Amino acid sequence: MTESSTVPETTRQYHLAKRPTGEPDMDCFDLVEVPTPDPDANEVLVKTLYLSVDPYMRGRMRDAESYAEPWDVGEPMRAGVVGEVVESNHAGFEAGDVVVGNLLWSEYTAVDGGELTSIDPDAAPVSTALGVVGMPGRTAYFGLLDVAQPKPGDTVVVSGAAGAVGSVVGQLAREAGCRVVGFAGSDTKTEWLTEELGFDAAINYKTTEDLGEALDDATPDGVDVYFDNVGGEITDAVFGQLNVDARVAVCGQISQYNATELPTGPRKLGTLIEKRARVEGLLVGDFAPRFEEATERLAGWVADGTIQYRETVTEGFENAPDAFLGLFEGENIGKQLVKVGERSA
Amino acid sequence: MTESSTVPETTRQYHLAKRPTGEPDMDCFDLVEVPTPDPDANEVLVKTLYLSVDPYMRGRMRDAESYAEPWDVGEPMRAGVVGEVVESNHAGFEAGDVVVGNLLWSEYTAVDGGELTSIDPDAAPVSTALGVVGMPGRTAYFGLLDVAQPKPGDTVVVSGAAGAVGSVVGQLAREAGCRVVGFAGSDTKTEWLTEELGFDAAINYKTTEDLGEALDDATPDGVDVYFDNVGGEITDAVFGQLNVDARVAVCGQISQYNATELPTGPRKLGTLIEKRARVEGLLVGDFAPRFEEATERLAGWVADGTIQYRETVTEGFENAPDAFLGLFEGENIGKQLVKVGERSA
Repeated sequence: MTESSTVPETTRQYHLAKRPTGEPDMDCFDLVEVPTPDPDANEVLVKTLYLSVDPYMRGRMRDAESYAEPWDVGEPMRAGVVGEVVESNHAGFEAGDVVVGNLLWSEYTAVDGGELTSIDPDAAPVSTALGVVGMPGRTAYFGLLDVAQPKPGDTVVVSGAAGAVGSVVGQLAREAGCRVVGFAGSDTKTEWLTEELGFDAAINYKTTEDLGEALDDATPDGVDVYFDNVGGEITDAVFGQLNVDARVAVCGQISQYNATELPTGPRKLGTLIEKRARVEGLLVGDFAPRFEEATERLAGWVADGTIQYRETVTEGFENAPDAFLGLFEGENIGKQLVKVGERSA
Repeated sequence: MTESSTVPETTRQYHLAKRPTGEPDMDCFDLVEVPTPDPDANEVLVKTLYLSVDPYMRGRMRDAESYAEPWDVGEPMRAGVVGEVVESNHAGFEAGDVVVGNLLWSEYTAVDGGELTSIDPDAAPVSTALGVVGMPGRTAYFGLLDVAQPKPGDTVVVSGAAGAVGSVVGQLAREAGCRVVGFAGSDTKTEWLTEELGFDAAINYKTTEDLGEALDDATPDGVDVYFDNVGGEITDAVFGQLNVDARVAVCGQISQYNATELPTGPRKLGTLIEKRARVEGLLVGDFAPRFEEATERLAGWVADGTIQYRETVTEGFENAPDAFLGLFEGENIGKQLVKVGERSA
């Protein structure tokens, strides 16, 4: 066993206190203190440096059959974590290694080494393993390039464009020779998109009266590809502008996740006939055999400045629920992270 | 010029009298008598034997940009027609030939011979060129095999299953080794589907209280392919049963065509994420380069009894609007035709 730094006797975790009805609030989260686990054979004790909060977690709080098991009430919630190995009973890791994995909302987690991936802390800030070169980046990569299949000259529209996934989608589309238009929820965000990320236009959906008209102005040649993270009224507006043979990649529907009744809206299938359009839902996990390809390319693009990124970092493990709830208010620019601990020197 | 039979001096046509609001009625149709046209150079005068009425025509009555030009008010409406050549100024046709083409709601039409296709009146009843081996059959062929891509063992659900398109879809799916479930609007129809066409189950949506429950019973392994001709509540029920990687071919939305307000319903995009499902609209015209392939195969299957068909034939040109309006009530089993004239001996 290797060991480094002082491991505290107890560790804080968030457990799911109850399932939310509609918008989750602080009553859904239970901050508990448990004995720091001892790693078993083949296990590694990981100190959390960064914890990822993501919109998909709203689905895990629901007691409904889905592509993944729901979280159990009274049990720890799960999250993407970048951490430092502090004790290792696994041959592949030693104390001081920086790793990424799907762990717990916890300051320390013991986990089988087989569930962890080492990351090179000198290649890029370690937090990017949860964002631009992590799951959100890969989601953008496969969702845009494999599902939506943009061609040079296409007009690509992205909702949630200033988020962790959307901001990468837009830059990949720009690199693919497309005209790129983004929807985002503040002027700070839309300026970032157009002035720094090379979007051709961006629409602040919170201050725009008529989304359809604004989109019409921004997409004079119509919409060939729509990458949807948001759903609802933004998506209704985009469906009105689809070109023949348009492709819609449905990645997220954050505007609908807190609905207490089955959300309704215009029936859109008729549009698909007229436009021979294709709408396809995607989960990044289906592309697992090709994660390495995506990670390598994304890391290269980040290293050479082709892809820029931002992170919104909330300090302190105890503030993780706040960071999560802020996603539904659009408080983050780029990837929303929680900084939980510091690397040992 | 070749000429046969006596051509009357006048011919009856239906013109679009006004654009309908909501459900079309007889006031939308103007029965007019015009001089029978003289064919110009390269033109052929065609006597209508069978006229096709189809749900898509509702879209042509609307003054809206679409994949095809809307019909003009005060002008003749268009239709698929099987007819007999009575005069020909085109080298490819002579009097007595049986042809199919996109002509007018008219007893006689003069048209450039290049727009007509000869059919062999001895191969199959000539009316089938408007149905099972015509546009509806080809729509089923390309929509199912190319867009929805069924695999042996898949469960395929078809709405409007007893219609001209749906009845072929179901039989092709059966041949492709799938479990086939159809929605139709009468017990006569559902019995035809299960007892003669080899559907594994059929649901009478007009007499079934809970469509989702009925579908759940009929699709114990969920739905891999949905071929949608109808939309609305049937489609809502099917989306609830989609399997991972399901494919939805959107061919028609007849339940929505007469809506006076933008039809609304459950927002379904979230389902597509969870199920990584693909929804794609189709127009048969996009497959024009492969029409011959489809027609030949369909004709072969009809000839050897693999594919069965029914036709609902309304007698008399003047009754064409009734036949059209009946489509929205589901009065037809199989292809709805209007018999307008007899072949000369």
